[in-house]
Amino acid sequence: MALKNIREENYPEWYQNVIAVADMAEVSSSPGCMVIKPWGYGIWERIQRLLDEKIKETNHENCYFPMFIPLSYFQKEAEHVEGFAKEMAVVTHSRLTMVDGKLVPASPLEEPLIVRPTSETIIADSFSKWVHSYRDLPVMINQWANVVRWEMRPRLFLRTREFLWQEGHTAHSNFIEAEKEAETMLYVYKDLCENDMAMPVLTGKKPEYDKFPGAVNTYCIEAMMQDGRSLQAGTSHFLGQNFAKSADIKFVNQNNEQEYAYTTSWGVSTRLIGGLIMTHADDEGMVVPPKLAPYQVVIIPLLKDKAREEEILAYANKLKDALKDASFGGEKVRVKLDNRLKDGVDKMWEWTRKGAPIIIEVGPKDLDKNALLWRNRLNINDKNTWKNFEGFDEFVNSVSDKLSLIQNTMFERAQERLNNNIRTDIKTPEEFREYFSNSNVYLENNKNAPKVSFVKGKWCGDDETIETLKELRITIRAIPFEQSGEEGVCLISGKKATLDVIYARSY
Amino acid sequence: MALKNIREENYPEWYQNVIAVADMAEVSSSPGCMVIKPWGYGIWERIQRLLDEKIKETNHENCYFPMFIPLSYFQKEAEHVEGFAKEMAVVTHSRLTMVDGKLVPASPLEEPLIVRPTSETIIADSFSKWVHSYRDLPVMINQWANVVRWEMRPRLFLRTREFLWQEGHTAHSNFIEAEKEAETMLYVYKDLCENDMAMPVLTGKKPEYDKFPGAVNTYCIEAMMQDGRSLQAGTSHFLGQNFAKSADIKFVNQNNEQEYAYTTSWGVSTRLIGGLIMTHADDEGMVVPPKLAPYQVVIIPLLKDKAREEEILAYANKLKDALKDASFGGEKVRVKLDNRLKDGVDKMWEWTRKGAPIIIEVGPKDLDKNALLWRNRLNINDKNTWKNFEGFDEFVNSVSDKLSLIQNTMFERAQERLNNNIRTDIKTPEEFREYFSNSNVYLENNKNAPKVSFVKGKWCGDDETIETLKELRITIRAIPFEQSGEEGVCLISGKKATLDVIYARSY
Repeated sequence: MALKNIREENYPEWYQNVIAVADMAEVSSSPGCMVIKPWGYGIWERIQRLLDEKIKETNHENCYFPMFIPLSYFQKEAEHVEGFAKEMAVVTHSRLTMVDGKLVPASPLEEPLIVRPTSETIIADSFSKWVHSYRDLPVMINQWANVVRWEMRPRLFLRTREFLWQEGHTAHSNFIEAEKEAETMLYVYKDLCENDMAMPVLTGKKPEYDKFPGAVNTYCIEAMMQDGRSLQAGTSHFLGQNFAKSADIKFVNQNNEQEYAYTTSWGVSTRLIGGLIMTHADDEGMVVPPKLAPYQVVIIPLLKDKAREEEILAYANKLKDALKDASFGGEKVRVKLDNRLKDGVDKMWEWTRKGAPIIIEVGPKDLDKNALLWRNRLNINDKNTWKNFEGFDEFVNSVSDKLSLIQNTMFERAQERLNNNIRTDIKTPEEFREYFSNSNVYLENNKNAPKVSFVKGKWCGDDETIETLKELRITIRAIPFEQSGEEGVCLISGKKATLDVIYARSY
Repeated sequence: MALKNIREENYPEWYQNVIAVADMAEVSSSPGCMVIKPWGYGIWERIQRLLDEKIKETNHENCYFPMFIPLSYFQKEAEHVEGFAKEMAVVTHSRLTMVDGKLVPASPLEEPLIVRPTSETIIADSFSKWVHSYRDLPVMINQWANVVRWEMRPRLFLRTREFLWQEGHTAHSNFIEAEKEAETMLYVYKDLCENDMAMPVLTGKKPEYDKFPGAVNTYCIEAMMQDGRSLQAGTSHFLGQNFAKSADIKFVNQNNEQEYAYTTSWGVSTRLIGGLIMTHADDEGMVVPPKLAPYQVVIIPLLKDKAREEEILAYANKLKDALKDASFGGEKVRVKLDNRLKDGVDKMWEWTRKGAPIIIEVGPKDLDKNALLWRNRLNINDKNTWKNFEGFDEFVNSVSDKLSLIQNTMFERAQERLNNNIRTDIKTPEEFREYFSNSNVYLENNKNAPKVSFVKGKWCGDDETIETLKELRITIRAIPFEQSGEEGVCLISGKKATLDVIYARSY
């Protein structure tokens, strides 16, 4: 079945197919884990590079902490362990031995070790050794690492037992500075998502019941996928003094008094790639925003005519060399000359499915006319010919604008989808219940419309509303920072309420 | 005790002290693991950046494979599992539960998982799915990852239970290409060590008894530490068809016959940082070669005089801005302005202990004279003043040369040590035994001479020589690629032998 039909009928299957045709990742034989293949990993490397710069610009330094956390560390923070206990990989032995021709675990550890699901506990332990006086604060660090959460329903990029992420951890001498840090990093993530990933996000706070285990406040960015479901793209937590108390991060303040530090943590993961796919991919396959594309321009020599092969390759190489002068977003344009011995049209479609932003074909006709044919991935069927009167300069100079246009168009399309699909016209619990009861993700047959919208409305905050949310299979994605302050009716309980929230189905 | 005295009396203790005073890493509360702190991790990031470029230039692509390997995968390659069985971390449970107020592992896994000690088995599993025809070959990939080997005597950087590395894995359609690949990557490592780390290495092959478990040949680079012991800095393995057979990596060759692929693997790790320390650090602390220094130039404003603080900071900032135009080795020079409110002399020594290549101090006197004082880390007590007649241009332009000189001097010093300390004058088993029996690592009291030399001489290759090697606490570090071919006497057995080998104590 063509990707196009699948997208309409079964969005999750379409998602898996995009990953397969773009050759980004695959399910591993190691249960619940994925193999990230070069094109997928190349996108992750771009995300790392761009985010790492922003993390360093905001005065954080990279470190590396052990991935094994002694079990007892989790006993220190009750909420934290409760949140993660059900999905922890536990190392209990340090050796294998052969018994009756079968390898079995040997040498039990004195204390079992947990493979980090997140590193608050082990990093707080280091902070407690580093911090003695207010002069030692703030401590602002980050690490790029793998983490493990024992997912029972794994999905490539979105939910795998092992995934890659960065986790920032900071300690401060006062409440205000720590709160500010959590907010700063949320906006760093928003910047990454919107300006680099072309994926607009809403910002806000998580409700009490959905906070990070052990946090005082969890801030989040939420993106709208093509099917109208929400994806939590990143979170930033203000942890107050909770972890400082359980790990004893104490300092002498300026009044010469002992005080517990205020800490934060924040992270984004390879899950972002899942969001990228469900924001931009189309009926042909993946579409990668230029800023994240491992190759932004792919040159395909059409080599059918054996007699002219050498000539065409030389022409393609000359073009590649000329493109060394092109730059985009302050970096050199990344160009790939695909000279594999394979049919040119097949290669064109292969790079289309991978989502390279600009694809150039050069064949015998182009050679004769001193020309080239280029395609914009967003309008892949349009052939743009460019005639080369005076060398490649003019084309090379235009590449930056072409890439900018693609990057901006991708963002605008996604922003438009988001803007058009936040319903604010649902005003009563009855309308609300009817909307979400009927909006089955795969019922609608209009591929241009998201399958379900976000609903912005009031929430009373009462515990009993949570049952209804579960029943309707929705969650409160965020309490937006901007609040109208007007009184209205809670869309679940019908009680009077002033808090605006975003309700949605989610990944 | 000063570092100087420690280096002479107890080299291992000096090593730990350098790491501490340079604030590069520390022992973690997670048993046998380390915390890599910003200065140590910054050096690792530089190694990663430079090596990653070389890996990509040699046509490899980065991927990511799961860190959990099903236990049964290790049963497939007998030598391989035998080599690693004693040092494997085994995950046996996927949940914690509370029993009598105590957290205990729950939900035993159907099949235990091994935290990768190396990834040949899991990557071969993917290769077996990717490779069907000779057209699918070669497959050339690399991953940056953490690995675990259950060390019983951990030492920071040199031997920790978890460490960071890259591991390259390739599959080829023929023997010659695979052998060539293993060799190519060995020389990529040599290039990294010598040109970026300023650490000269010897190249060669490991003897049979010391090969990577499962390899046909293991090639290695060996560096000489200041105490004359050898450090294996990197290895590259030609695996023949061993892993292809155990994981079923088969392809149809050009004659339309089924054939097993030929594979290689190669890796370097955070251990390199241990080698860097024992090659370059001195009596003041760490010395980082400019190409790897997270900051190559550190500017320290001397802020004792409160009244002139602002003026001095402005001057220091002006210098920092001017240095934005400086470049070294094709990259912008990395400059740090250390404006912490701390005594300037203390800061100067702090950066000395960290080993920043160039340290600049600017105080009131410099301001008045339009000057600055700069120090070369290799001669830290020499104060070089530079008088600024016409802005900072002249100084800025000289930075590249200054850094080159430091980089080259560091390499030359290490190369000279290596050249001068390979003994070739030991010709009989008696002399050999006497030399290594008496050369206790900490006996000699001449800090300028390595404590023990490498010995280059003949080896007969007989199994019984291995006992003597163990008794003398030495190993055969490498069988050099360049062989004289002349017959001589085995330095252990006294038998006739033609093979030249390097004998040494090692880390």
